[in-house]
Amino acid sequence: MRTQVGIIGAGPAGLLLSHLLHLRGIDSVVVESRSREYVERRVRAGVLEQGTVDVLNEAGVGDRMRKEGLPHHGIELRYGGAAHRIPFEKLVPGRAITVYGQQEVVKDLIARRLADGGKILFDVPDVALHSPEKDPYLTFQGERLDCDVIAGCDGFHGVSRASIPEGVLKIFQRDYPFAWLGILARVPPSAEELIYAHNDRGFALHSMRSPEISRFYLQVPPDTSLDDWPDERIWAELRARLETVPGFTLTEGPIVGRDLSAMRSFVAEPMRHGNLYLAGDAAHIVPPTGAKGLNLAVADVRLLTAALAEYYETGSTALLDAYSDSCLKRVWRAQHFSWWMTTLLHTFDADDAYGRRLQISHLDYVTSSEAAATTLAENYVGLPFDFGAPRD
Amino acid sequence: MRTQVGIIGAGPAGLLLSHLLHLRGIDSVVVESRSREYVERRVRAGVLEQGTVDVLNEAGVGDRMRKEGLPHHGIELRYGGAAHRIPFEKLVPGRAITVYGQQEVVKDLIARRLADGGKILFDVPDVALHSPEKDPYLTFQGERLDCDVIAGCDGFHGVSRASIPEGVLKIFQRDYPFAWLGILARVPPSAEELIYAHNDRGFALHSMRSPEISRFYLQVPPDTSLDDWPDERIWAELRARLETVPGFTLTEGPIVGRDLSAMRSFVAEPMRHGNLYLAGDAAHIVPPTGAKGLNLAVADVRLLTAALAEYYETGSTALLDAYSDSCLKRVWRAQHFSWWMTTLLHTFDADDAYGRRLQISHLDYVTSSEAAATTLAENYVGLPFDFGAPRD
Repeated sequence: MRTQVGIIGAGPAGLLLSHLLHLRGIDSVVVESRSREYVERRVRAGVLEQGTVDVLNEAGVGDRMRKEGLPHHGIELRYGGAAHRIPFEKLVPGRAITVYGQQEVVKDLIARRLADGGKILFDVPDVALHSPEKDPYLTFQGERLDCDVIAGCDGFHGVSRASIPEGVLKIFQRDYPFAWLGILARVPPSAEELIYAHNDRGFALHSMRSPEISRFYLQVPPDTSLDDWPDERIWAELRARLETVPGFTLTEGPIVGRDLSAMRSFVAEPMRHGNLYLAGDAAHIVPPTGAKGLNLAVADVRLLTAALAEYYETGSTALLDAYSDSCLKRVWRAQHFSWWMTTLLHTFDADDAYGRRLQISHLDYVTSSEAAATTLAENYVGLPFDFGAPRD
Repeated sequence: MRTQVGIIGAGPAGLLLSHLLHLRGIDSVVVESRSREYVERRVRAGVLEQGTVDVLNEAGVGDRMRKEGLPHHGIELRYGGAAHRIPFEKLVPGRAITVYGQQEVVKDLIARRLADGGKILFDVPDVALHSPEKDPYLTFQGERLDCDVIAGCDGFHGVSRASIPEGVLKIFQRDYPFAWLGILARVPPSAEELIYAHNDRGFALHSMRSPEISRFYLQVPPDTSLDDWPDERIWAELRARLETVPGFTLTEGPIVGRDLSAMRSFVAEPMRHGNLYLAGDAAHIVPPTGAKGLNLAVADVRLLTAALAEYYETGSTALLDAYSDSCLKRVWRAQHFSWWMTTLLHTFDADDAYGRRLQISHLDYVTSSEAAATTLAENYVGLPFDFGAPRD
């Protein structure tokens, strides 16, 4: 077999890349270790930046998102017994976020690729990557797929980054001393917008997937087990961390999913090795507090599509050569923002009284200074693509 | 002896308080352990916020400051081989800083107090504070000074805070793993504005005291000694950290002073115990990176003057009762800002590659986003007095 771009991984990065390449007349094959059912049900991120929404709409895969996605024009910071809204419509006019689950994006992209005759190979657990420096190819299940280019879209634990020889990548990493317990409940959201709650018991996030489905996150110890979290404990903890302002009552109901996520910051540089290009979680991980992971993956594949299109149309490798540096500007902005949201809102050392008061002081500032609130808002909705340019 | 307000410490806080009280017809005595010559020569801070300048002018002690002080409308952040100016005139129109040494403020205040017949007792090393809860008085050198109120303006190591019984104060503290080596050189400044330099060798600051005197600071190990820093090493290190952009040359000359400062964040709450009111460094310390220490002291004594004037004029203790809470709002804003500037610019763990890149990413953001640059500017020139009020 032969294709122009071999794509490893049928998550949002790989699927969107395959679709965007198709729109530019470039052939690709997507190889995924899991089943279609698995990837369509994998609950992950749910907050789309304005730029991500724009890309999906421009690519013609935004129909259901426009119908079922929930546009949000602000978020709430809840701490010290009070609710403080960060009003996007005032601080970053014309830009908003859309709440739409990652698995819905994945479903939409799979349906569209298959309708367009795209090749997605599911249930291929044994993919291996060869000769990334020159004449790259993939092997799996006795087959060989020759490619001009390989796109590694297979996430943090995938084979793509692992195939790069030792010493090529520089790794930047930080682990956090807590994890997130994610909860999916079949119950209407208790508020219209996301609530980021700072609490001495630990951080909590009220979110949603639809008008019928709530999504919650609790800061938990890194060594906790799902077995430690029966329904009653989950609701008690959510009440304790969220029912801290007058008039707010948590609506409870059946819990239909729970998952644990490690909290990690990670960047591998560069995002290219020869003809292998990394995109999304394969190259970088952020803690989910800033809702940036999926959006970074979309930004990566948008740049990669433009670079590959230029290459196939003109023979120039200028954009391909610039791919890693271009991506990394946005990646590091998101790294900083995600670290910032995480350290602002979570409980670290409970004995560090100074650190706790510093958080409160910082929250007071973000909720009272227009400039400080704007730094949160402009990062949350997603910075424009020229944000890294010099100012004067 | 008897006075209305017994003031411990003839630094800027104690002297300004004594003067402001005098303007409101309130009698005070200032008791200082050191000599007049010592306090007038003690080199400390040199950046006055707009609000501090306004207070000194309104109080009629700004004549020399207006003549000799250097108004600055921006600072430079220098990192990654480039210079980035934070333009106050654009970001916070109408607000600026004035470079004027703390010891000059002290000289002006002493001269004015003595001209007005004010009582300042120098060289009184043995002051002790009694009965702060009720009928307070000071003793020193066999004398007794009865007061309505005692103002503890005697700095971090003074007797005022130490006199408060154990268990009354809650202490918030953080120490940093480095110190500052301060250098005074008889040489014209090498640039017109302050330069905050981020460098792998450690932080450096280019500042000045006058058109003829430069002031520099170097991040140094906490256990360093002044003996480790002969002139040639100081200049070599300043060159290495500051001569990092094309066209910039450090002007060198005779070093006429050098000092070491610990880097510490500290707050004692509340700032009142009975009839003892703490002001300035006696209650709170910030690392000097944000140039906030002297300005906080001025803000404290401004509030304390208003509270005491209300008390003597109307008998109401409302403002006195609110003194600690009112001060602490500004104190914690400055605590956060000073911590922020410090962690943004200094070298911490050299092996923490992620942390270093996070700093660069943050600096890129501050120098490219108008909102982020404004958060630096508005804190640096000093936030307005209503900054803590709810936003909507």
